Amino acid sequence: MVSEFEFINNIKSKFSLDKIGDDCAVLPKDGTTDMLLTADMLVEDIDFLLEWTTPEFLGHKALAVSLSDIAAMGGTPTFSLLSLAIPESLWKTDFLDRFYDGWHALAATHNVELIGGDISKTLDKLVIDSTVIGEVSREKAILRSGAKPGDAIFITGFIGGAAAGLLQLESGIKFDESLPIPLKNLLFRQLQPLPQIKTANVLREHGLPTAMLDISDGVSSDLAHLINASGAGCQIDLEKLPIDPAISSLDLTEEQRLDLALNGGEDFELLFTVDKKYFSAVQDLGFHHIGEVTANVGIIELRTAEKTSILTPKGYRHF
Amino acid sequence: MVSEFEFINNIKSKFSLDKIGDDCAVLPKDGTTDMLLTADMLVEDIDFLLEWTTPEFLGHKALAVSLSDIAAMGGTPTFSLLSLAIPESLWKTDFLDRFYDGWHALAATHNVELIGGDISKTLDKLVIDSTVIGEVSREKAILRSGAKPGDAIFITGFIGGAAAGLLQLESGIKFDESLPIPLKNLLFRQLQPLPQIKTANVLREHGLPTAMLDISDGVSSDLAHLINASGAGCQIDLEKLPIDPAISSLDLTEEQRLDLALNGGEDFELLFTVDKKYFSAVQDLGFHHIGEVTANVGIIELRTAEKTSILTPKGYRHF
Repeated sequence: MVSEFEFINNIKSKFSLDKIGDDCAVLPKDGTTDMLLTADMLVEDIDFLLEWTTPEFLGHKALAVSLSDIAAMGGTPTFSLLSLAIPESLWKTDFLDRFYDGWHALAATHNVELIGGDISKTLDKLVIDSTVIGEVSREKAILRSGAKPGDAIFITGFIGGAAAGLLQLESGIKFDESLPIPLKNLLFRQLQPLPQIKTANVLREHGLPTAMLDISDGVSSDLAHLINASGAGCQIDLEKLPIDPAISSLDLTEEQRLDLALNGGEDFELLFTVDKKYFSAVQDLGFHHIGEVTANVGIIELRTAEKTSILTPKGYRHF
Repeated sequence: MVSEFEFINNIKSKFSLDKIGDDCAVLPKDGTTDMLLTADMLVEDIDFLLEWTTPEFLGHKALAVSLSDIAAMGGTPTFSLLSLAIPESLWKTDFLDRFYDGWHALAATHNVELIGGDISKTLDKLVIDSTVIGEVSREKAILRSGAKPGDAIFITGFIGGAAAGLLQLESGIKFDESLPIPLKNLLFRQLQPLPQIKTANVLREHGLPTAMLDISDGVSSDLAHLINASGAGCQIDLEKLPIDPAISSLDLTEEQRLDLALNGGEDFELLFTVDKKYFSAVQDLGFHHIGEVTANVGIIELRTAEKTSILTPKGYRHF
């Protein structure tokens, strides 16, 4: 049985959806601007469970995942199309009002305007397709493919939190404002992720990243995407992985914590590389240095004080 | 119980999806060009039944409905994003290869390039969301809102065929190359509609339409959209309705034939208005004249030799 991850990658390559091979498609808009386009589909019981989230969180997340793709290219989002297939059971509730409240609150933060989309009934599961359009200065979109051996690899924030939040939901915990703060933070990471638009723009304006993408599949998979697109390899220092501090509040083994950090998806932080001459400057800005790009094409080496091993990327598995 | 048509219109206005109030959103691209954007969602068992169609037809139709929206504005399609939620039952079949063959054959005809989209697993029904981007000369997009009293109303081709094809599918007939030609034509109208891109471009290049939209919901509903957007009314000659000639091969009453023509959806012909001074020129081009725009705001008058009655638009009901 082929896994969903393999299945989807097979289909994506069959449909040439990986032709552009990046977080967004890039199209020339005018003499000074390129246009970015991305679409993300969220399917009930695959990408979310209605009983684990709130309509507001879901509206937020539907937009956030696409905004994160725009961020990954260093772009600024501008417009959105939103398509929904809605089961009859949700028609008569306040679901859509609340969904849209969540969507709109995030859209307003980033000045994103809803310009179209479609609505259809469905007999079964809720399906959301979010398309976001953005802009970036002409030929300044940050691709996955620009990393070169010697570049330093950074992550904008903490990782593993979204996957740890998912574990908590799976264990039966429900989001509630009265939960302890670390636990609530983990649930926020899973249910209401924050796209790193502003950080990405600052990085791009300073011309720092040689390559960038957002951490949606998990660090190990996303590192693989980056080095494969760049025709390079990388070496990662295990002890430098910026594991979400809230994870320490959970009763987990060290191995489980590392698994969350390496293979947990949906943190929507940015993974980027910079020329080594900017290493100190970027580290001083508070970003987390995790390793270096190597010439060892296609290989992710994982380094500890004791040994260096080869990391096999694990795809993010939806619940 | 609110009908699906009312439900969807309520939701669309709630979500401001009708803000632009036209077939596509129009955004400025550069000094000489506007960009058109449209998204259309097709849901299994609402918009199509897998046993009534073929994967190739479905791939074709998923793109065709969006191309028709571009045509309705007088635009030229350029790029597409395609998102699919796919049930496991279709993973292992040749469904997706065949779906894409159908999609690509139509895309190649119109030089549309697939630049992105998303693929997700679903536990249940197939859902397709098609986004198409197009272009039109700056401020030359043909809106629904430009019709003025006295304008002549035309339809590009025949109507009612797609709904008649649907009736045949509902009666148990399956598409087969060996079917009689009129029946096959009706099934083609339903399963493999042809967007009127080239016709729309010729009309726009000659500056003819004052208003235009595509016939997706049915003539009565689409006339209502046009006159409401234009702040006008219209008078239609019942005997001038260009009922699809293939419908005469079916054993139907006159009332049933008129119902198909007035209220049957998905013909994807264009409904447009021209200043009366161009009436003869447009009629000579072979388009079907069906009536005139009036100052009787919001009212569709239906004229026969005997009497004039008020037509109540009926929304297209999905099967």
